[in-house]
Amino acid sequence: MSEQQIVLASRPEGRPTRDTFRYETIELDALKADQVLVETLYISVDPYMRGRMNDARSYSQPFELDAPIQGGVVARVVESTSDLLTVGDTVVGMLDWATKSVVDAKQVRKIDATLAPVSTALGVLGMTGMTAYFGLLDIGNPQPGETVVVSAAAGAVGSIVGQIAKIKGARVVGIAGSAEKIQYLKEELGFDEVINYKTEQIGEALDRTCPDGIDVYFENVGGAIGDAVLDRLNPFARVPVCGAISGYNEQADLGPRVQSKLIIARARMQGFLVGDYGKRFKEAAEQLGQWVSNGELKYEETIFEGFEQVPDAFLGLFDGSNTGKLLVKL
Amino acid sequence: MSEQQIVLASRPEGRPTRDTFRYETIELDALKADQVLVETLYISVDPYMRGRMNDARSYSQPFELDAPIQGGVVARVVESTSDLLTVGDTVVGMLDWATKSVVDAKQVRKIDATLAPVSTALGVLGMTGMTAYFGLLDIGNPQPGETVVVSAAAGAVGSIVGQIAKIKGARVVGIAGSAEKIQYLKEELGFDEVINYKTEQIGEALDRTCPDGIDVYFENVGGAIGDAVLDRLNPFARVPVCGAISGYNEQADLGPRVQSKLIIARARMQGFLVGDYGKRFKEAAEQLGQWVSNGELKYEETIFEGFEQVPDAFLGLFDGSNTGKLLVKL
Repeated sequence: MSEQQIVLASRPEGRPTRDTFRYETIELDALKADQVLVETLYISVDPYMRGRMNDARSYSQPFELDAPIQGGVVARVVESTSDLLTVGDTVVGMLDWATKSVVDAKQVRKIDATLAPVSTALGVLGMTGMTAYFGLLDIGNPQPGETVVVSAAAGAVGSIVGQIAKIKGARVVGIAGSAEKIQYLKEELGFDEVINYKTEQIGEALDRTCPDGIDVYFENVGGAIGDAVLDRLNPFARVPVCGAISGYNEQADLGPRVQSKLIIARARMQGFLVGDYGKRFKEAAEQLGQWVSNGELKYEETIFEGFEQVPDAFLGLFDGSNTGKLLVKL
Repeated sequence: MSEQQIVLASRPEGRPTRDTFRYETIELDALKADQVLVETLYISVDPYMRGRMNDARSYSQPFELDAPIQGGVVARVVESTSDLLTVGDTVVGMLDWATKSVVDAKQVRKIDATLAPVSTALGVLGMTGMTAYFGLLDIGNPQPGETVVVSAAAGAVGSIVGQIAKIKGARVVGIAGSAEKIQYLKEELGFDEVINYKTEQIGEALDRTCPDGIDVYFENVGGAIGDAVLDRLNPFARVPVCGAISGYNEQADLGPRVQSKLIIARARMQGFLVGDYGKRFKEAAEQLGQWVSNGELKYEETIFEGFEQVPDAFLGLFDGSNTGKLLVKL
């Protein structure tokens, strides 16, 4: 049976297209000691991966041209030469976009498939959930009664951010881009206010929904939405900067400079990567798992079916169509 | 003898001009209980005052049209109905731009004229020095061997920032705009490297002078200089945002958005006002006084002579001509 992988065919200028990707048939190596052959179950597509497609200084190494793209993958062990893993185990790790892979056993982490659907290891109980957890709590530090604004609020990270902020007693205002998302955030997730940035004037909508100003802004998008929120920060506001998806495909992402805004509000903007919190992953996983199991933290998944759907799933990140975590099931 | 004051004649659009100001003759009220009549000795002109000339949300109240402009003033008590102050005392406070003022004694603070020239109460031992102290140490937190970049490095705050960073063992790179300033920073203040942004390409100059990247950027100017520095931040860099003088007179201060830069570097940008550190002024004043007295901390003053020079002194803040603290001596 022939296996396949997806390589970076060309570095996109602006928004990626299907030509960014190329499918290749692969020959898998025989297992060496302490390795496993895994069969991919779920592939995670994430906005940060756009940055790795550039050949530029970034927070992680650029993907190599003509080499497999790597990302979060949940897989099942089908062969093992390792004492750590046996056939049938479910694992998660940063693996090639491929139908099967041979990897060192230490490169993946076993997950307990009886606790929660295994796809959650890529979402609410994985890097996505931890990104929300550390960015909001460590940098944003919302206090009861404060106003927390989150952009891309119906996205994988944003939807968790808003719910954790609610758990912490904050007033939560979400920004999203469709009537369905607005309804989901308000009715399913209990956001206090929701703004549809496609149908409302963002500045006016923020004034209306945040009459007491903004204490925490969890930044996922940048662009004109970020500009408008940064104009309305309260004194000593905190702005965890998780993403800026509106600028990822821009050649020159120009906007009003923030220096004066930060002085006026004495505000703090701080970029972060979930990987920097490695020592506290256990704490976050336990807390997130508890919130999910007691029903305080809900999650949504948008699942594409089939390995041939991976490029379309990735491109879907940039058209605002997904709710919750975007995954491809093989 | 008739006394004079300077009022805000019009709100400037863009750069202030002499028409921004108007001189008026004033009648001083008789002293009530616990007041003093003071004669102005030194008036401080500071970039932040430009912000108060706008009728917009800002960190301090806008100046009122046709009302006296207020700022840092050193004055001598010439009449007193207060037990706290006697005739001949030298005081500092936020007072009207006027040749004489009647104020509540509690509105000013007595300074010891035997310790240092009284003008230093407006500069290195006053708000200027404390702005450098808290912004650099509390937010920037430079570590020995780290690279600290400071813009407007020959200015009142910048020159103190660079010297404190040196005291803390950091490598200091200053950005300034004239050959005289460059020479002063390098030869008098001991900066490790200095960039003349008017004659050098800022990006190339930063690459040359900061081969190990930038750990702390003390932001005084914003604009294209800030943009270039923010492109070169090391992981976990800190950016205390003190000022953005290049944008103060702009209608639309556009530049590359910072969100992606902050994520890439996991960097923190934080605006601050010295007034927020009131509880620690004593600590700062003692430490700054000690550094000045033992010769580790030098300061420069550019002094205009005469009350009629106040507008020109203020306008001089924006043409980059001053070195050190800009004062008017009456």
